Amino acid sequence: MNVNGIPHRTIWPAKEDSTIVRIIDQRHLPHKFVVEELKNLEDFCRAIQEMHVRGAGLIGATAGFGMYSAMLQAPKNNPEDYLEKSAAKLISTRPTASNLSWAVNRQKSAILAEADPLSRIEKAFQTACEIADEDADFCRRIGEHGVSLIKEISLQKKGNPVNILTHCNAGWLAFVDYGSATAPIYAAHRLGIKVHVWVDETRPWLQGAKLTAWELAQENIPHTLIPDNTGGHLMQHGMVDMVIVGTDRTTRTGDVANKIGTYLKALAAQDNDIPFYVALPSSTFDWKLRDGLKEIPIEERSAREVLYIQGQTATGLGETVLVASEKTIAVNYGFDVTPARLVTALITERGIMTANERDILRFYPEQKTTSGQ
Amino acid sequence: MNVNGIPHRTIWPAKEDSTIVRIIDQRHLPHKFVVEELKNLEDFCRAIQEMHVRGAGLIGATAGFGMYSAMLQAPKNNPEDYLEKSAAKLISTRPTASNLSWAVNRQKSAILAEADPLSRIEKAFQTACEIADEDADFCRRIGEHGVSLIKEISLQKKGNPVNILTHCNAGWLAFVDYGSATAPIYAAHRLGIKVHVWVDETRPWLQGAKLTAWELAQENIPHTLIPDNTGGHLMQHGMVDMVIVGTDRTTRTGDVANKIGTYLKALAAQDNDIPFYVALPSSTFDWKLRDGLKEIPIEERSAREVLYIQGQTATGLGETVLVASEKTIAVNYGFDVTPARLVTALITERGIMTANERDILRFYPEQKTTSGQ
Repeated sequence: MNVNGIPHRTIWPAKEDSTIVRIIDQRHLPHKFVVEELKNLEDFCRAIQEMHVRGAGLIGATAGFGMYSAMLQAPKNNPEDYLEKSAAKLISTRPTASNLSWAVNRQKSAILAEADPLSRIEKAFQTACEIADEDADFCRRIGEHGVSLIKEISLQKKGNPVNILTHCNAGWLAFVDYGSATAPIYAAHRLGIKVHVWVDETRPWLQGAKLTAWELAQENIPHTLIPDNTGGHLMQHGMVDMVIVGTDRTTRTGDVANKIGTYLKALAAQDNDIPFYVALPSSTFDWKLRDGLKEIPIEERSAREVLYIQGQTATGLGETVLVASEKTIAVNYGFDVTPARLVTALITERGIMTANERDILRFYPEQKTTSGQ
Repeated sequence: MNVNGIPHRTIWPAKEDSTIVRIIDQRHLPHKFVVEELKNLEDFCRAIQEMHVRGAGLIGATAGFGMYSAMLQAPKNNPEDYLEKSAAKLISTRPTASNLSWAVNRQKSAILAEADPLSRIEKAFQTACEIADEDADFCRRIGEHGVSLIKEISLQKKGNPVNILTHCNAGWLAFVDYGSATAPIYAAHRLGIKVHVWVDETRPWLQGAKLTAWELAQENIPHTLIPDNTGGHLMQHGMVDMVIVGTDRTTRTGDVANKIGTYLKALAAQDNDIPFYVALPSSTFDWKLRDGLKEIPIEERSAREVLYIQGQTATGLGETVLVASEKTIAVNYGFDVTPARLVTALITERGIMTANERDILRFYPEQKTTSGQ
């Protein structure tokens, strides 16, 4: 997608030297657009761990390139051992990110299928690019499918702007390109369909305020930032036509774990007869799970993220401020689970499906035999 | 309630000189406890307008003392004209606060019923004290009624802590003493009933983080601060036994306007079979209204409150940080309306009543003839 009018991905190998991989250091957004160069395994580990990059798809793609970078450094004697240790190092950076281990393991298999060092490096580079391209392609296809839902409402509204509410950042910054929840929005905008996005600021991290609002602005998509408390009121007053969010993990029965607060918006959508869509590449399905509320572990993050807020002062400096007494006890659950009964439909790279096992398996027949107990 | 172990009200006349009125300047909480002296009408107007004091009950009480202060300054010739102008000045400080004009008008009638200047000053002081005492007394009685609901759950839980979620600050800082939503909690705590409060931080102003958490800490009531997004998840996992919130305006049919985001918590409470209570002194009833969603005007506040967050830096200085791009458009609705169907019961100074017109009027029979169209 565009940054200052120039198309970007969130991660890309340098044209002039493919041993260097570039990323957007997202910690500085929206105040500064900083491109960072990753040159060795340590750079990649730090970028994931310290959240220069975040988001399911992008973490996977970064890990893919990280394995390639490790291969470039691998010693001649016993490179397999070095590869194994590098894989473990990468996986340990964000142990709960499912795409991370998926990408690392895919790289391991691909690399070890080759025999000589040079073929292994070539294969690793090729696989890293494939992982990134696939991620972008899946998101693009989510957009192609999802845009039909926006188009329909636009027709009903006789071309008046379709008001879409989203929570957190399931935008292109969370993937390699397009995003999941944002892909249908970008697709609609490019078709000339008028849209307007309500952006939940998404406490405690403020991914909506810092990332989603920024990326929508770069694409000239009309949007309005709101506190997370606001969506219910907007829905009660006919100011929201549809909700589209992403998901970090999805059961085979259609329960979705997404950023904390998503469940509250799903309840409000139901109470006001507003369709609630979840957009996802199929890599976020956890085919073993049937009951999201009972089975999806919910990450508990540091209370500091609640007590301290980072922003920019009037003089343009980064600063962190304490917003409660420093003795206050706070808790910080990262996600909540929206049960399938509140989800109107899932939008994946294969199409639009009802959030129940029967319909999901109609689109993913190869998963019929996956256990799921 | 206690501040550093010493009982305080939020407003009180100085013992040594009753022409001076003292308030807690709440803008400095939780970082500093600052007592401010108000000595003339201008001081009172500034204190209300710039939110040194806030909250329905406290604004009313401050206006009451403000009218008394105006009487102290009234010129000998044509004091009625001065009184009228002072009243208008006070009311204009927060035009949407219903308790403000109510208190000012009550003072006007009381003052004008006296003939000579000295009796008028005495009457004004007496009325201001009455308004403050009544507010405290109504809140105390809300506590006496509401505590029965907490006691019942405590018995069911065999004395394990009762987990109560609250939103915004309907604590003693919003009134003269006790608070509305907090009154039953303080009453329970004093009876030795174990409670634990989930404090919604309440974006954008963070009244929960800055005020509610602080006042609960002063009373040694166990509590945990949470982002507004968190309550639904807690309710899904049996971590909330009841919700108690306040209200800024309540219809005769039991619809309640409260801080934005309240409606989302009411939905989550309903979805998880958790009782949702609203505590209020009867001064917040607007007996003319029947349909909260259609008839209660929702204040739209400055977008700056969303984009900029105030807190304390590591060196202890107050600082304001921008958390989105400064070009981002944001909206800031102050309240939302929770329809009566989602309210388990109202707790007022007269008792606990179902949120419907018939039951409310059973407790307020004198309002049967109030229009309500």
